[in-house]
Amino acid sequence: MAENISPLFVLSLVFFILISLTSSSPSLSLPPRLWPPRFLGQFSRKPASSNRLRLQQYRYDVRYFEQPLDHFSFSAEAPTFRQRYLISSDHWAGPERMAPIFLYCGNEGDIEWFAQNTGFVWEIAPKFGAMVLFPEHRYYGESLPFGSRDEANKNSTTLKYLTAEQALADFAVLVTNLKRNLSAEACPVVLFGGSYGGMLAAWMRLKYPHIAVGALASSAPILQFEDIVPPETFYDLVSNDFKRESISCFNTIKESWDAIISEGLKENGLSQLTKTFHLCRELKSTQDLIDWLYSAYSFLAMVDYPYPSNFLMPLPGHPIREVCEKIDGASDGTSILERIFKGVSIYYNYTGDADCFELDDDPHGMDGWNWQACTEMVMPMSCSRGGSMFPPSEFNLSFFEEDCRKSFGVTPRPRWITTQFGGHDIKTTLKIFGSNIIFSNGLLDPWSGGSVLQNISDSIVALIAEEGAHHTDLRPATPEDPDWLVEQRATEIRLIEGWLSAYYEAKRLIFDM
Amino acid sequence: MAENISPLFVLSLVFFILISLTSSSPSLSLPPRLWPPRFLGQFSRKPASSNRLRLQQYRYDVRYFEQPLDHFSFSAEAPTFRQRYLISSDHWAGPERMAPIFLYCGNEGDIEWFAQNTGFVWEIAPKFGAMVLFPEHRYYGESLPFGSRDEANKNSTTLKYLTAEQALADFAVLVTNLKRNLSAEACPVVLFGGSYGGMLAAWMRLKYPHIAVGALASSAPILQFEDIVPPETFYDLVSNDFKRESISCFNTIKESWDAIISEGLKENGLSQLTKTFHLCRELKSTQDLIDWLYSAYSFLAMVDYPYPSNFLMPLPGHPIREVCEKIDGASDGTSILERIFKGVSIYYNYTGDADCFELDDDPHGMDGWNWQACTEMVMPMSCSRGGSMFPPSEFNLSFFEEDCRKSFGVTPRPRWITTQFGGHDIKTTLKIFGSNIIFSNGLLDPWSGGSVLQNISDSIVALIAEEGAHHTDLRPATPEDPDWLVEQRATEIRLIEGWLSAYYEAKRLIFDM
Repeated sequence: MAENISPLFVLSLVFFILISLTSSSPSLSLPPRLWPPRFLGQFSRKPASSNRLRLQQYRYDVRYFEQPLDHFSFSAEAPTFRQRYLISSDHWAGPERMAPIFLYCGNEGDIEWFAQNTGFVWEIAPKFGAMVLFPEHRYYGESLPFGSRDEANKNSTTLKYLTAEQALADFAVLVTNLKRNLSAEACPVVLFGGSYGGMLAAWMRLKYPHIAVGALASSAPILQFEDIVPPETFYDLVSNDFKRESISCFNTIKESWDAIISEGLKENGLSQLTKTFHLCRELKSTQDLIDWLYSAYSFLAMVDYPYPSNFLMPLPGHPIREVCEKIDGASDGTSILERIFKGVSIYYNYTGDADCFELDDDPHGMDGWNWQACTEMVMPMSCSRGGSMFPPSEFNLSFFEEDCRKSFGVTPRPRWITTQFGGHDIKTTLKIFGSNIIFSNGLLDPWSGGSVLQNISDSIVALIAEEGAHHTDLRPATPEDPDWLVEQRATEIRLIEGWLSAYYEAKRLIFDM
Repeated sequence: MAENISPLFVLSLVFFILISLTSSSPSLSLPPRLWPPRFLGQFSRKPASSNRLRLQQYRYDVRYFEQPLDHFSFSAEAPTFRQRYLISSDHWAGPERMAPIFLYCGNEGDIEWFAQNTGFVWEIAPKFGAMVLFPEHRYYGESLPFGSRDEANKNSTTLKYLTAEQALADFAVLVTNLKRNLSAEACPVVLFGGSYGGMLAAWMRLKYPHIAVGALASSAPILQFEDIVPPETFYDLVSNDFKRESISCFNTIKESWDAIISEGLKENGLSQLTKTFHLCRELKSTQDLIDWLYSAYSFLAMVDYPYPSNFLMPLPGHPIREVCEKIDGASDGTSILERIFKGVSIYYNYTGDADCFELDDDPHGMDGWNWQACTEMVMPMSCSRGGSMFPPSEFNLSFFEEDCRKSFGVTPRPRWITTQFGGHDIKTTLKIFGSNIIFSNGLLDPWSGGSVLQNISDSIVALIAEEGAHHTDLRPATPEDPDWLVEQRATEIRLIEGWLSAYYEAKRLIFDM
């Protein structure tokens, strides 16, 4: 169908759509090339009900702690908010034994959902006699300032205290307070985190070494800022995940964008797309469908686990392989668009329960993560001309800034994260500074490209799993776990044991002095 | 004279004065046992005119940089202020040579005054081919938000962004920006700082290792918080400085408090004290005189340099020795109060120019440092019963907090600094984390008791000068410098050279890879 339209014409149309969207649309609806993909999409909102059931498997108390809303200024009002945290002392050997505290750095979502999907921490806690602590990230889950989600997310005045620095300070204040109340000041804290939570874990070890003895930072793209890694890294890795399964699958997806755009331009084209993709509501713009597909491919790459999982969606093992089998395996005569639909149905409808699809992931809604992306978490994203299955695009900071001003009334500070936490030339810095951080990554995960993939020093190390996806290591153990995963976790346990031994040794030396 | 009044009665009177001051006085006038001594007293305000002249000796440009007022939140308004900084590239070998940048962390005062009193940095810069940078601390000197000193210090709403964390972020943003503009990203930054500026230098190396390769933190009492060191440390050290010169001098001062208080209680007692101490205005309360004396003794201990100096005041070498010679050497029959007056005249009137004295040091006025002391810089201070020449007193956090609420409308967060920067059990933490910090101290300096006095690791080291005072090492070299001082500075230069060599080596290795 697309043969009648020259590629240049299509490209200019894409550009036109982009421009019109960025210049006129008051509600955010941006092509993925401007907005970084969300780590967790709609799932950062709340656990799906199906997940709720599985919460039973880990036992913990739910508690609340009154936190200063702004740790970094002092004022007469000094507003506070209630931070939720999950705590389990079931296996804790207590302060007499200086038993460790395992602290998972809550990320952009409901903390119970992270607790459920971070089986590793629960599973190793008994072996270490460790307390388990899952503090929730401010402005997510139930940890909402100003009384409600709507009030918290109302505008830049209420959102202004939603930053990584404030979240780290929350963790620091909470655990310090908790330890004091338990006379557990000498108990070492070990940090865990995945994805954005992994970034927080690494940064917390760097910024609060007096509070935590080490950090397992899984799939933590702390280098996905400014020009540290090329902006095309993420989508090139997504593309590679498809290419490695099937070149024809990769090519079909690559060709599909022209097909979608030209279909959308036809009379009744949007209706036809609505029908082809079994959408519940009439498609309003081709861009919405494109966003929906970008999300599916990106999330599929993140959760390309080697066994069936239910992290973002219920999925089979090796889901990209399954998607590509659908795309490649459709009978002759099946159109590109129908192939694509069959493919992404693996992601959006593996259970087969859905009769139609809502494009309501709302990836650019006024919620916490978009605020963070529009302020400090500016991760430049583009799609390369060569290795990508997505249409080529460049990251335009000016457009992005303009959109953030429109959406939230704030101007991003794209250089702030690297100023605050570093990133450029990280090897030179951390080779002689810092210790006890594991950067674990699965190379199938598109976020791995922005993470630390080389050992930096004896104790700041990179663990790489070629067949791993988004923080595979933190997930609950399963009988289907491949050998490399079992070994990776064993290495992590050994390293953590080493941190704790060194800590106890240092304490003993000082005690003996 | 004091013999007619029992010590217990005097003590209860002191207590009464304390209570009445803390409960009714709207303007702050607190005994030193509640408020920590100021690092620099009135001199944090602006250079005395006599000092201005000496500014000629170092050549620099004065520039300004637009800083976000709040680095740690994002808002639609995003207010800024103009930060002043001094810069000299006269001896800088430039980016091609990866020549270092020496950054002095400006503390609570006019930056030109610090530049003048930090000769060490200027004197070693040519040897290193280093750029010299003296950024001013926000809310001091000319670096005032809201347009003027009065507006900046108006109330808690305007003062709220005056914190150490914000100041560190100012330095980080400034130097990162400057380096980028000069294509000098690879040039290593070495931090210097004395007193509170030394605390900032140490903390900045810990929090921003990607921005600075090392820090010389001179007389930096980073452990003077919470219960890390005993609260009597400071005044016991002041007392020791007098005792080592002369036990009778120590005893005279120790006895003088009763004499002052009982004199003040007499009819016309305040007039008599006004006369004895040659005050320009009629004394309103004995406490004001006591504060004035506490200040003199504390500052004398800080600047007990072995050669004549003009840091806080023009003073002879070994000024405490001179004070004690006056106190001890007065002719028989000289009253205690007259002896004390003769002694402190060494501090307040060494030049002999003053006909009378203003008690206008205003140590507890509504200025920046008091705000910092009332928010995060809570340094508990007391006077011991045994080793102190000051009346015994305890630190009462509740009283202190109540006073801060009255003065500024804020409640201090006394545990925040240790949560943010650490301090407890610092050896265990930094033994396996961090590098390249020199904690230099002179043991005559009462702030040395709250600093790091033992080596922590191979590269986090303590340099101790038994005869040194408040950041003696940072002062300009003089022909009278004793050998230990010359050696100490040579050691510092050698350590800094080591940091830079390691940095260049690391860069070379990465370059070669």
